[in-house]
Amino acid sequence: MSTEFTTVLNYEMDHDGDPSRLVYTFGGAEPRASISPGQVLDTSSLDCFAGAIHSVDDLVSEVCDHRFLNPQTGPFYVEGAQPGDVLAVHFASIEPRHTLGFSTTVPLFGALTANGFTQMLHAPLPEMTWVYRIDKEKRTVRYEARESDATYELPLDPMHGTVGVAPALNEARSALTPGDWGGNMDTPEMRAGVTCYLGVNVEGALFSFGDGHARQGEGETCGVAVETAMDTVIVIDVIKNIEPVLWPRLESDTAIFTTGSTKPLEDAFRISQAQMVHWVAELTGLSMMDSYQFVSQAVEAPIANVVDTNYTVVAKLRKDYLPAVAPMNGVHARLKAIGRAYLDTK
Amino acid sequence: MSTEFTTVLNYEMDHDGDPSRLVYTFGGAEPRASISPGQVLDTSSLDCFAGAIHSVDDLVSEVCDHRFLNPQTGPFYVEGAQPGDVLAVHFASIEPRHTLGFSTTVPLFGALTANGFTQMLHAPLPEMTWVYRIDKEKRTVRYEARESDATYELPLDPMHGTVGVAPALNEARSALTPGDWGGNMDTPEMRAGVTCYLGVNVEGALFSFGDGHARQGEGETCGVAVETAMDTVIVIDVIKNIEPVLWPRLESDTAIFTTGSTKPLEDAFRISQAQMVHWVAELTGLSMMDSYQFVSQAVEAPIANVVDTNYTVVAKLRKDYLPAVAPMNGVHARLKAIGRAYLDTK
Amino acid sequence: MSTEFTTVLNYEMDHDGDPSRLVYTFGGAEPRASISPGQVLDTSSLDCFAGAIHSVDDLVSEVCDHRFLNPQTGPFYVEGAQPGDVLAVHFASIEPRHTLGFSTTVPLFGALTANGFTQMLHAPLPEMTWVYRIDKEKRTVRYEARESDATYELPLDPMHGTVGVAPALNEARSALTPGDWGGNMDTPEMRAGVTCYLGVNVEGALFSFGDGHARQGEGETCGVAVETAMDTVIVIDVIKNIEPVLWPRLESDTAIFTTGSTKPLEDAFRISQAQMVHWVAELTGLSMMDSYQFVSQAVEAPIANVVDTNYTVVAKLRKDYLPAVAPMNGVHARLKAIGRAYLDTK
Amino acid sequence: MSTEFTTVLNYEMDHDGDPSRLVYTFGGAEPRASISPGQVLDTSSLDCFAGAIHSVDDLVSEVCDHRFLNPQTGPFYVEGAQPGDVLAVHFASIEPRHTLGFSTTVPLFGALTANGFTQMLHAPLPEMTWVYRIDKEKRTVRYEARESDATYELPLDPMHGTVGVAPALNEARSALTPGDWGGNMDTPEMRAGVTCYLGVNVEGALFSFGDGHARQGEGETCGVAVETAMDTVIVIDVIKNIEPVLWPRLESDTAIFTTGSTKPLEDAFRISQAQMVHWVAELTGLSMMDSYQFVSQAVEAPIANVVDTNYTVVAKLRKDYLPAVAPMNGVHARLKAIGRAYLDTK
Repeated sequence: MSTEFTTVLNYEMDHDGDPSRLVYTFGGAEPRASISPGQVLDTSSLDCFAGAIHSVDDLVSEVCDHRFLNPQTGPFYVEGAQPGDVLAVHFASIEPRHTLGFSTTVPLFGALTANGFTQMLHAPLPEMTWVYRIDKEKRTVRYEARESDATYELPLDPMHGTVGVAPALNEARSALTPGDWGGNMDTPEMRAGVTCYLGVNVEGALFSFGDGHARQGEGETCGVAVETAMDTVIVIDVIKNIEPVLWPRLESDTAIFTTGSTKPLEDAFRISQAQMVHWVAELTGLSMMDSYQFVSQAVEAPIANVVDTNYTVVAKLRKDYLPAVAPMNGVHARLKAIGRAYLDTK
Repeated sequence: MSTEFTTVLNYEMDHDGDPSRLVYTFGGAEPRASISPGQVLDTSSLDCFAGAIHSVDDLVSEVCDHRFLNPQTGPFYVEGAQPGDVLAVHFASIEPRHTLGFSTTVPLFGALTANGFTQMLHAPLPEMTWVYRIDKEKRTVRYEARESDATYELPLDPMHGTVGVAPALNEARSALTPGDWGGNMDTPEMRAGVTCYLGVNVEGALFSFGDGHARQGEGETCGVAVETAMDTVIVIDVIKNIEPVLWPRLESDTAIFTTGSTKPLEDAFRISQAQMVHWVAELTGLSMMDSYQFVSQAVEAPIANVVDTNYTVVAKLRKDYLPAVAPMNGVHARLKAIGRAYLDTK
Repeated sequence: MSTEFTTVLNYEMDHDGDPSRLVYTFGGAEPRASISPGQVLDTSSLDCFAGAIHSVDDLVSEVCDHRFLNPQTGPFYVEGAQPGDVLAVHFASIEPRHTLGFSTTVPLFGALTANGFTQMLHAPLPEMTWVYRIDKEKRTVRYEARESDATYELPLDPMHGTVGVAPALNEARSALTPGDWGGNMDTPEMRAGVTCYLGVNVEGALFSFGDGHARQGEGETCGVAVETAMDTVIVIDVIKNIEPVLWPRLESDTAIFTTGSTKPLEDAFRISQAQMVHWVAELTGLSMMDSYQFVSQAVEAPIANVVDTNYTVVAKLRKDYLPAVAPMNGVHARLKAIGRAYLDTK
Repeated sequence: MSTEFTTVLNYEMDHDGDPSRLVYTFGGAEPRASISPGQVLDTSSLDCFAGAIHSVDDLVSEVCDHRFLNPQTGPFYVEGAQPGDVLAVHFASIEPRHTLGFSTTVPLFGALTANGFTQMLHAPLPEMTWVYRIDKEKRTVRYEARESDATYELPLDPMHGTVGVAPALNEARSALTPGDWGGNMDTPEMRAGVTCYLGVNVEGALFSFGDGHARQGEGETCGVAVETAMDTVIVIDVIKNIEPVLWPRLESDTAIFTTGSTKPLEDAFRISQAQMVHWVAELTGLSMMDSYQFVSQAVEAPIANVVDTNYTVVAKLRKDYLPAVAPMNGVHARLKAIGRAYLDTK
């Protein structure tokens, strides 16, 4: 694959304002379009409310249908992708479409409230909506308190909460859930400049993404980030004849990342760390025990989410600790070059 | 309290090579010395093996007595400390005593092995020891693989795994365990330049610390960091008439931190986040719901340990997100100034 | 609905020995047959290996395709069932088809081994198969040790590990997973004489069942019970205009049961207990706090499974503690009478 | 040891109504009396409130001091007990002292409420007290609703929530916590007729017990059982030269039991099951894998508590599944005979 981009797929989800025409699962949905390795995908995503929140007066339980939360862009049928391959998804650009982002509390959802799984006898916490002003020039979002006049500026740091493929075993999984197929991992590391690696379970991979966040704290504690529609440019590749990717991985210019998504949170940690031990052993030739030792001293372990139906933990390793390794045959650099070439034309 | 240091307590744990004369609990031990608020403590700590590991041929199960792991320096009786007060422990300097650090695997201990609580029917993983060369000039530690010739350089980043006071309820807790009294939290954030805040449970607080790490990955995955004896300079203060500190907190020049230590890991996360929500509300005047929202978008959530008898998660908030707040009446800046004044004399 | 059975549906899953023609999900599969409320379903189920294990020499990893584990009988379209209704599934009879049952260990599956979620660095435990002789006259199964000559007799206690309907949110879930749709709950309480209540998520409910066990310990510790094909007689009803059943419930002549299926195990416990508190409040008119207190002193809490992709806990309350309550409008007694009337004709 | 009892120790905790003179830890307290193997201990215990609750108008947060909850009877120095021995504690009789028992809710304590570890932002559930009338003739306790006129009869089933010895590693642990030293396991199986086996950690064992419950549901869901003072007759023995008992075990006439106490709940399950696998292998000569298989089909797994600072799960195996095994050299039968001989004299 050359680093020149060849063709561009411009794609927008068509739904005519009817949320029931959108897609809310990984698996179980027909592909909306096809895409080829190396092709640039210039597209967009709705926010997780399917655009139903407009002001502090809009409450999720009143303006949203619980069946139509977190709509995904896709699925895309990736030409040539076969089970056992690895799909590489490079985010060349993720930019908020609008100047407002929204966060909310949702009754019986979040890390510091009783919820449908951690069931308790408490009444729900108050349901509220917060509006953030997004300044793309200053690269900030502005928090405005609801119960006082306080405001605070936080860095704009756009990302996608949800990236994934169709799961194995003929499952169809809600876009609210993360797992080994990707899905709603909600890690702030999924920002522009990053390549996400996903194991392919079905022919064509059936890739989708969505859930744009103007920024998010680690853990997504109240359950909702600064939600906003996004304009996103993606470059995709299919890697064949490589060790299987059992759980989603990421790569940036400066680090490699593994993820684990399950409950309890220590098992999500264990998955991410074990996957990093195996990956480092592959990349370096270290024995498993030597890799275990190296990772134990070198890794960072930022939490992604503790609110979704599975929790997600990330293991992060700085590339400068491991000079001269080339993860995934160097696909990250190639996809990044294609993305930049395309963005330079705009 | 002025920022001039007044007196210095030079203290070394005296044990004549007999590990049974050292202290391995928080609570349950008589104070070894007294210290006054504002006084400088210039002291040292043994490594977690009580110095019994010297080379790759020393295995923990052969050279250590399991009753004598993780000896603490202290306890120190802090003049004037009463239950309900907050003890501020500023680490002015933490420097490795020696040029070697040691890490090991320990049978049935660690995050990626069956252990005494996550009991399984597997045989233990291999028991091994790794030696790290510490270069205090270059500020690096050198990893050397045991089963190949590979070596890697990692940044030297000295810290204390264990800092705490006597627990409540007349408990005495092993120095291997973290909890609301502090103890074996094993967070890499406990480095020089940081002030740790601990709620006082008994008269005199009975402060101890130890478990120096030349560096540690987040999670301390194999259960053992780059263990080394430390030379440590501490400045202590007692804060009265302040909101209780229910779980240990930290402050650096650039961030404030809360901690939670329990199992499962999501409950450690919940504690750290709830404590941060309450602290931000106190510091800013935000309502609880507004603070919950702010923290959800602003916080970082690095894991500290997933190997000890309780797991530890940290919530970290950059101070520049919250201009003009003064945590703990500004004690961090005062203790830091005292520490610097003392270090300048050496 | 009268207690006379009207018609009988005799149904066998047709697959001609090709396991790919069977159904392995709840949701995502077309109905195989329709059934009406009050109709008797006289049917059978394959064992969880789809019949591939025949002797101690057959190992799961060698003779089974991991895509084709735990085939279900169904799905059945239940006439008249609408979302929000409650499906009542009465098991009139569950009898082993054959005289042999099989249990196994499966690499990296089970409660006392590292597995795909509780990831560790251990090699798998040995993979083995055990054969149990089933004596339907004596009502026993005979355990035979593999590594010595020991044999032990255990009571025959036939049950179905898997009972469920199509999930909500357009999900399709592997038959290896339990959740609020039922599925692979693996509770020994699902024996003949019991009625299972399931909330209906889609038109027709799409009921399936399978995974017959000649007996099972609580927890299903090694991950596999005494697996065997079953002849099963079921009577179904649809209950309308009743409080929603959010998580599967059971009723026998002597007890009512709620279930919760998630991880960690304490959340499965919390779900089952909270659902019992709410159910007892509905049945008795007790306030929520009074019901919480009553349940706290009266309930039993047997674990169902700690091996599947979600764990299951049961809350069980003896009916004689609550005289004069009639759960679910008395449907259990009516379905039981229909089942007995049918069995008397055979 | 003969089955004739030789001497009797009549012992009452002396505190003159001052709760600060009672004992609230395992470890960290001086022995109150000495007892010899085979000696009968005829004694009593206070309820967990130290007798401070007398009516529905008494709330725990108002009438109890949180430092003085769950007072224990003991510790008793057991003559001849050495670290590595097994202490056998036979409960010959456990009978309520009074005709009233009390249960309560406690703010931020219990399984279905936010608490100090599962921290959330909810306000506490209402704090209430319930009074149970105990009828020792009819063997019932009578539940009386607080917010309606309902009453229900439940079986009287007296038990001790707390039984233990001094922990290892010089720890002193609150009597509110269970662990490998025993402590607050809160299993309803700890009733009269049962022998509890505890590993000895310190010379003299330092045995204590308390926390009588007139009855308790499995899980102790609201956190408080039907609490009552007890008259208790105990017979003790020390078993030497036997496999170590790493976690508390029980034996009745009809079953053997293992326990695990930690969080998350699945780890408590894993401990109890792994200990049962090892115990069955010892008793039968089965290999570890054969024992794993046998236990998987034969065991019951009732939850004990999901409210204390550690959670407890029990593994229970009927003795008639394992004919001809003699656990712990038959000490249960001998202690039972001594206890009966003594009770016959009263």
